[in-house]
Amino acid sequence: MEFTAKHIADFLNGIIEGDSNTKVNRISKIEEASEGSLTFLTNPSYTPYIYKTNASIVLVDKDFKAEQPVNNTLIRVDNAYNALAQVLELYNKSKPEKKGISSMAYVSDLAKIGKNCYIGEFSYIGDNVEIGSNVKIYPQTFIGDNVKIGAKSIVYAGVKIYENTLIGKECTLHAGAVLGSDGFGFAIQTDRNYKKIIQTGNVVIEDYVEIGSNTTIDRATIGSTIIKKGVKLDNLIQVGHNVIIGENTVMAAQVGIAGSTKIGKNCMFGGQVGISGHLNIGDDVKMAAKSGVGSNIKSGEIIMGSPAIEANNFKKSYVHFRNFEKLVKRIDELEKELKNVKNK
Amino acid sequence: MEFTAKHIADFLNGIIEGDSNTKVNRISKIEEASEGSLTFLTNPSYTPYIYKTNASIVLVDKDFKAEQPVNNTLIRVDNAYNALAQVLELYNKSKPEKKGISSMAYVSDLAKIGKNCYIGEFSYIGDNVEIGSNVKIYPQTFIGDNVKIGAKSIVYAGVKIYENTLIGKECTLHAGAVLGSDGFGFAIQTDRNYKKIIQTGNVVIEDYVEIGSNTTIDRATIGSTIIKKGVKLDNLIQVGHNVIIGENTVMAAQVGIAGSTKIGKNCMFGGQVGISGHLNIGDDVKMAAKSGVGSNIKSGEIIMGSPAIEANNFKKSYVHFRNFEKLVKRIDELEKELKNVKNK
Amino acid sequence: MEFTAKHIADFLNGIIEGDSNTKVNRISKIEEASEGSLTFLTNPSYTPYIYKTNASIVLVDKDFKAEQPVNNTLIRVDNAYNALAQVLELYNKSKPEKKGISSMAYVSDLAKIGKNCYIGEFSYIGDNVEIGSNVKIYPQTFIGDNVKIGAKSIVYAGVKIYENTLIGKECTLHAGAVLGSDGFGFAIQTDRNYKKIIQTGNVVIEDYVEIGSNTTIDRATIGSTIIKKGVKLDNLIQVGHNVIIGENTVMAAQVGIAGSTKIGKNCMFGGQVGISGHLNIGDDVKMAAKSGVGSNIKSGEIIMGSPAIEANNFKKSYVHFRNFEKLVKRIDELEKELKNVKNK
Repeated sequence: MEFTAKHIADFLNGIIEGDSNTKVNRISKIEEASEGSLTFLTNPSYTPYIYKTNASIVLVDKDFKAEQPVNNTLIRVDNAYNALAQVLELYNKSKPEKKGISSMAYVSDLAKIGKNCYIGEFSYIGDNVEIGSNVKIYPQTFIGDNVKIGAKSIVYAGVKIYENTLIGKECTLHAGAVLGSDGFGFAIQTDRNYKKIIQTGNVVIEDYVEIGSNTTIDRATIGSTIIKKGVKLDNLIQVGHNVIIGENTVMAAQVGIAGSTKIGKNCMFGGQVGISGHLNIGDDVKMAAKSGVGSNIKSGEIIMGSPAIEANNFKKSYVHFRNFEKLVKRIDELEKELKNVKNK
Repeated sequence: MEFTAKHIADFLNGIIEGDSNTKVNRISKIEEASEGSLTFLTNPSYTPYIYKTNASIVLVDKDFKAEQPVNNTLIRVDNAYNALAQVLELYNKSKPEKKGISSMAYVSDLAKIGKNCYIGEFSYIGDNVEIGSNVKIYPQTFIGDNVKIGAKSIVYAGVKIYENTLIGKECTLHAGAVLGSDGFGFAIQTDRNYKKIIQTGNVVIEDYVEIGSNTTIDRATIGSTIIKKGVKLDNLIQVGHNVIIGENTVMAAQVGIAGSTKIGKNCMFGGQVGISGHLNIGDDVKMAAKSGVGSNIKSGEIIMGSPAIEANNFKKSYVHFRNFEKLVKRIDELEKELKNVKNK
Repeated sequence: MEFTAKHIADFLNGIIEGDSNTKVNRISKIEEASEGSLTFLTNPSYTPYIYKTNASIVLVDKDFKAEQPVNNTLIRVDNAYNALAQVLELYNKSKPEKKGISSMAYVSDLAKIGKNCYIGEFSYIGDNVEIGSNVKIYPQTFIGDNVKIGAKSIVYAGVKIYENTLIGKECTLHAGAVLGSDGFGFAIQTDRNYKKIIQTGNVVIEDYVEIGSNTTIDRATIGSTIIKKGVKLDNLIQVGHNVIIGENTVMAAQVGIAGSTKIGKNCMFGGQVGISGHLNIGDDVKMAAKSGVGSNIKSGEIIMGSPAIEANNFKKSYVHFRNFEKLVKRIDELEKELKNVKNK
């Protein structure tokens, strides 16, 4: 994976300033780049680095004006940020591609595998599984009976998918994620024991969904737990049984959502947010990290705190909380002075 | 898995109203049911759905009175909720059962496997392991040396059980759970490095315990981390070394319990609760979601907040916190008025 | 693994009081010890137990004076606590050692494996992997292409290491940990979809690092996510892309650190702490459990709460929060009295 300045400039429709034969073999941040690095200047506050970086090639905006001599080969492009994204894609595509069905995997005779799939070593593909074309299944994954996985999806090492789970196309499931484990449902008995409520539902993941490492999504008690199109879930998130998450909602790591809660589309949740069960969360809701949500939230609200309230109110109240000591002294003082006034 | 109304009514001792040959092949919620669904009316607020559902069969209480025409086959039973639970069990038992020891598993010659067990592909069963009868071990699980697992327990895909762990009968361990990893014990050295304290203990799981996906339970430093009879732990929970959890205590997802804390029986903890180490938590304690517990808690208490206090007190204080801005204005006003009074 | 009092006393340079042939086969806490146990008295508050324990051997400090008859064999040592640590190490070394490369593992022809390594069943070792000498890789681990692992490191069952990750020597990675999964980076599009930002960086783990079960560490977008020498991470921790954690910093379970945050050395974080992205946390910072950190923190600070503030201030404010009801009554009373004064 080595590219010349000429190769990159041709790909990006850029203009070379310097040696068009300069070679790079990796992409680096400008403050960390060394010889052999391709780097980029997309944020003006990093401009000073361009005069001292050892990077071999720097992507810059067309109108960049050097105020000191620059020793690297520059490639001028319309928009350095977009050019970087294109280069990252190029880099990604140049990686050797995993292919073929390993003889060390177990694939049920009753499974249907699409064209051009990768199934890695020690993976288990159960009965009646249907896998679309160009799907990549890394080693040590478990695909239970009747699971369907759409075309071009990637299932990384050690993902565990229980039976009957349905997964759309172009989804990415990261290592250790668990889809379809039993919902947490128990009925208390007269002797204080709990009896398990059988969980007969499944998990449905629509297209273009990304699910982080070691995230867990429980099957529905009856019906489906549904993760809609374009949802992005970070690592170590818990999604309870019968939860529905609307399109293009994104959640940072360690969020937890209790059973039967419905979440709208285009929401953004910070890390470690917790949401109780059986709630309705609207569209376009933003939750600050660590919010604890115990009631329904209307579309468009921005909330914070635990229990979560409107974010601006929380911030105002919290300023007073920080100064609580002073405030109590003011009250002490008021009482003293009022006593004096009364005793006059 | 197809059942007729007659089959179900016979099983439930119910009375058919409609066509006894009506067939169903799945269980659905009344608001989502379609042709081929068996559904149920257990909550009166869902009654309007019975007049428009396309479900083929509806379970209803004996004394249900239709106020509009019903187009489905009804099965009248003494108690529709209990009947549903029975049907879910029936459904569960009708699933094809996994059986036999895969030739693609590794089973130590020194392991003892009970009758009628399932051991899935790519599972590892170490030396001196003892597995009771009718145990199901799904693919890709790791059962370390000297582990014992009681009869009828289920170990789902990818569970990792370190050596010397003891597991009772009829336990369910969900995918990705880790039992017996080292406790987090390090002794600080004079140069600020940490030296590992060897963790020689084990984990003991008593009978009827359920452990959620990707939950982690550390081995004791010395002695045992103990999860008592009937405990139910949801997903992504952390149980530190030497913790003891009492009978029939249930915990929602993402709870964390630090080392050497003892928890009583019949407790209920909401999601994302955190409990410090070396504490005593009594019996029948209820903790609201996200409680942060840094001190001992007496039996029967209901707590909330972080640091957690008595739940009703927390709620009262939090109402004032929400209105903090107004309260500070009242204090401002008092100071102004008092000044006026003094200056009169 | 059976030892006599003589064997132990010789090893510890201790003096036997009682039968030098007394045998033990396990280490127990004094309050739980039974016949066959080696136990220890390191904390004076546990002294009463020495007169009733059934332990066969008790380690005591040289100058321990029994005030009642003791029925066990004693071994007197300079420092019972240090002696215990030595015994735990001895116990650990006496465990049967896993060795050899399993024929049921997959090892790429392009991988280089050092001397005296263990590679367990169903593990996958990718192309160009380099593994140092005396490394132990338990069953069902995934080691992606180009990964390097230093000498004497231990990788427990089911760990997943993505390509290009670098791991130092004498590291311990617990079961289910995931290293190198994609950072959570998406660029919002005009139609509210998110486009994945390709994550081309890697994860670098320096020497002597311990990583807990099911902990997840994301690769950098560009460059490296770095865990420096001697860091100890507990279970279920999330480390975002491009995070840097300084030497000898320790974190309790379920901590979450968002992308690009830099953390200094010798820090100590309690459980369930959450830290936002792009922050600078100094050296020697202590964070109480459940702290929520949204701004830079200077070296040496001790913080608490969410949003986190100086710990002592938080505690003072929280005392007032707990008594909020009373405080509001004082304000009510002040208003009433002031009204009376004005109306006089």
